[in-house]
Amino acid sequence: MGPTPRMSVSHSSLSSYLDSLEVHELPAGFQCGVHGFRFEPAELGGRKTAVMNLTVLALDAPTDDWAAVFTRNKFPGAPVKVGRARLAGGGALQAVVINNKISNVCSAGDGVMASEAVCNGVADALKLSGGAEAVLPLSTGVIGWQLPVERMLEELPAAARTLKRGSALPAAKSICTTDRFPKLRSVRACGGTITGFAKGAGMIEPNMATMLAFVLTDVAVPRAELRTMLGRAADASFNCASVDADQSTSDSLVCLSSGASLGKPPLDAKGCAEFEAALTELCARLAEDVVRNGEGTTHVIRVAVRGAPTEAVARGAGKAVVNSPLFKSAVAGNDPNVGRLVAAVGSYLGKVAPELDLSACTMRMGGRTIFAKGAFSLDAATEDELYEHMKGASLVNPVAGEPPSLPYPPHERCVEIEIDLAAGKAACTVHGSDLTQEYVSINADYRS
Amino acid sequence: MGPTPRMSVSHSSLSSYLDSLEVHELPAGFQCGVHGFRFEPAELGGRKTAVMNLTVLALDAPTDDWAAVFTRNKFPGAPVKVGRARLAGGGALQAVVINNKISNVCSAGDGVMASEAVCNGVADALKLSGGAEAVLPLSTGVIGWQLPVERMLEELPAAARTLKRGSALPAAKSICTTDRFPKLRSVRACGGTITGFAKGAGMIEPNMATMLAFVLTDVAVPRAELRTMLGRAADASFNCASVDADQSTSDSLVCLSSGASLGKPPLDAKGCAEFEAALTELCARLAEDVVRNGEGTTHVIRVAVRGAPTEAVARGAGKAVVNSPLFKSAVAGNDPNVGRLVAAVGSYLGKVAPELDLSACTMRMGGRTIFAKGAFSLDAATEDELYEHMKGASLVNPVAGEPPSLPYPPHERCVEIEIDLAAGKAACTVHGSDLTQEYVSINADYRS
Repeated sequence: MGPTPRMSVSHSSLSSYLDSLEVHELPAGFQCGVHGFRFEPAELGGRKTAVMNLTVLALDAPTDDWAAVFTRNKFPGAPVKVGRARLAGGGALQAVVINNKISNVCSAGDGVMASEAVCNGVADALKLSGGAEAVLPLSTGVIGWQLPVERMLEELPAAARTLKRGSALPAAKSICTTDRFPKLRSVRACGGTITGFAKGAGMIEPNMATMLAFVLTDVAVPRAELRTMLGRAADASFNCASVDADQSTSDSLVCLSSGASLGKPPLDAKGCAEFEAALTELCARLAEDVVRNGEGTTHVIRVAVRGAPTEAVARGAGKAVVNSPLFKSAVAGNDPNVGRLVAAVGSYLGKVAPELDLSACTMRMGGRTIFAKGAFSLDAATEDELYEHMKGASLVNPVAGEPPSLPYPPHERCVEIEIDLAAGKAACTVHGSDLTQEYVSINADYRS
Repeated sequence: MGPTPRMSVSHSSLSSYLDSLEVHELPAGFQCGVHGFRFEPAELGGRKTAVMNLTVLALDAPTDDWAAVFTRNKFPGAPVKVGRARLAGGGALQAVVINNKISNVCSAGDGVMASEAVCNGVADALKLSGGAEAVLPLSTGVIGWQLPVERMLEELPAAARTLKRGSALPAAKSICTTDRFPKLRSVRACGGTITGFAKGAGMIEPNMATMLAFVLTDVAVPRAELRTMLGRAADASFNCASVDADQSTSDSLVCLSSGASLGKPPLDAKGCAEFEAALTELCARLAEDVVRNGEGTTHVIRVAVRGAPTEAVARGAGKAVVNSPLFKSAVAGNDPNVGRLVAAVGSYLGKVAPELDLSACTMRMGGRTIFAKGAFSLDAATEDELYEHMKGASLVNPVAGEPPSLPYPPHERCVEIEIDLAAGKAACTVHGSDLTQEYVSINADYRS
């Protein structure tokens, strides 16, 4: 298993990138609406105001065919608790409401009641027969603050009035917080459309890497199959990505199908296989987009690990590389400091598999072998080649005076690392981002 | 268990800090010598030169009473392999040789043979009857490069000629790489002296947090007891510290006693208890020094976890906080982003103890309760107090135009965090550093 082949993309401006996303339409049976408003967060004591976006996704008819995967953080947000209850309840959904700016996690008030009140407001505004139970709430933003429920209820009708079919781009933009660009992907499969979008830039790690991701389809996938497939797709995509090893309290991946309500017959086994492949690829692309959009990210690092005794060890070794602050910092500087690569792998394996025989382990970077038989092969020419490989994967605008990382992805190249532990048959490919001064700067005072 | 009380220190300049260290003398029976020289690293193809320091610690007579703890990294450096062999061999030591700049890890040549050649050079220069076997080699610096053995052998006699008694400061300075200041501590115990010094600024995490640390004593501690005590002391000090979660390939803690060779009687059980307490406290102070000296560090974060089901969970929860890039970045900006604190704890516990009941968990920062019964207690006044607490723990020079972090520790205050999981009786206190733009800058191009 080597690096996954990727479409060649190249964008020279934000508008050319956004133009490429405009073609990603909502599947049949879906509408989205977005609305922003200014409010005073209670915790700031009237000193400052903030802007919140409300995003509403609505289906033309309720659907039983939906699935969701949530964070495993021990302090989950109130919307995650509500979502789990909806999932367990087995009822139909007809709308999703997402707010940014405040994540409704461990706030002083009753967060679940706040989320339910917002769902109720959506059900009223959309006149949903299923009531609040037919609405799934999601929140992202500052942890610990309370949702401004009254203000949200005042503004929800305005959000409902903006509902329309067509591009999913307004929703993909509206759910963002510190994201630099919207992350939106679409594929055709099984005679229908699968469209996904995600937000997330920091607090990005395993067990649902992105804070919030949505996959909408008009293919009629029965609920049970959809839930199984979504779990597997998340495992192979978002759960193999990391910006900063921090697992959010809000991570949620939601998938809704309008197919059955459009009168389409349910997918058969062969159709399900095709759908799952397309779903998994879409999630993988979105997860990579999330990493590429990571806070301050100037390089995406792709680590393909093989020859591991188990998939967990393969994934862990890859994660150890993309979560090593030292290696990430070196990548930011286009510094081929492969010693730190080997140190990160050795540190992880020393903890989880101290008896593993690594005498035949090899590592490659940019397609070039840099470590074999327990020793490095390094010289000045190799250093130059590795430097050029890293520079070629940089997302930084070479024009002087431009910001350190671009507000859109100019290409999809990665710093390519291959690790063959030669100690088993399991494999896993992990994506991560470098660590830059911009990341620190963004996170040193996010809330101000 | 709350924050450990610390001596009040306050230094207004590097020289006042260094003056305070000058009093830390080598114990009786020890000498140190230091010597720097310029060389051409083979891997740079003659493009650049570098400076290497040789540091020699010598005992007046061979000692059987020594102990060492080494990294568990799966790609250990050649000196670690040699050190493990010396430890297993059970022979006496009379000297330690340390070089910086190149760590002799996984280099293209035979690293063990290179380390042994250097030991042989030391034995010749010091005319040691025990030969190379009586010399312990340690290296720190760039991973993957080869030791310039010929040049080191040429320069070793010059290092040997500088051997002298008195201050350990020359050795503490000489072993540094990117360290901002030397880390040196000394205590009186059991009628003798224990003097320790350490180097390490990046690639600092568990299982021997500092890359290299040395503890010298003239107390006569028998070998078996010394080895047991050193393991426990490392566990309670260096293994509870983290700058960047990266466990080095070279981490080593070495302890040597000259007591028996000075004719002192071996410690009895009561003496051993006193010695171990002093040793553990010394190691804890050194470990905290290492964190305070972390690359780009502007705050030390102390996390006291209690109420955990096991010590491992207590340690892991503390480590999760001090290794969270988001929380570390917030601390750098004096931003009391306690949401990230709770998210980091929840992310860790969700992985290792998903069934734990956290309903009675409380968290405090700067002595103020910020989280209880599943919710935050936050308001503008609390935010102001937390901000002042963080600012008070800052190591940054408030004088405009000064570097972002000082080249000496002006005080020993920490950002104090207390977490009571209320789910058991185990406790652990962990130290870590914040994450700054300077850390990234240092590590984006360390080798140039």
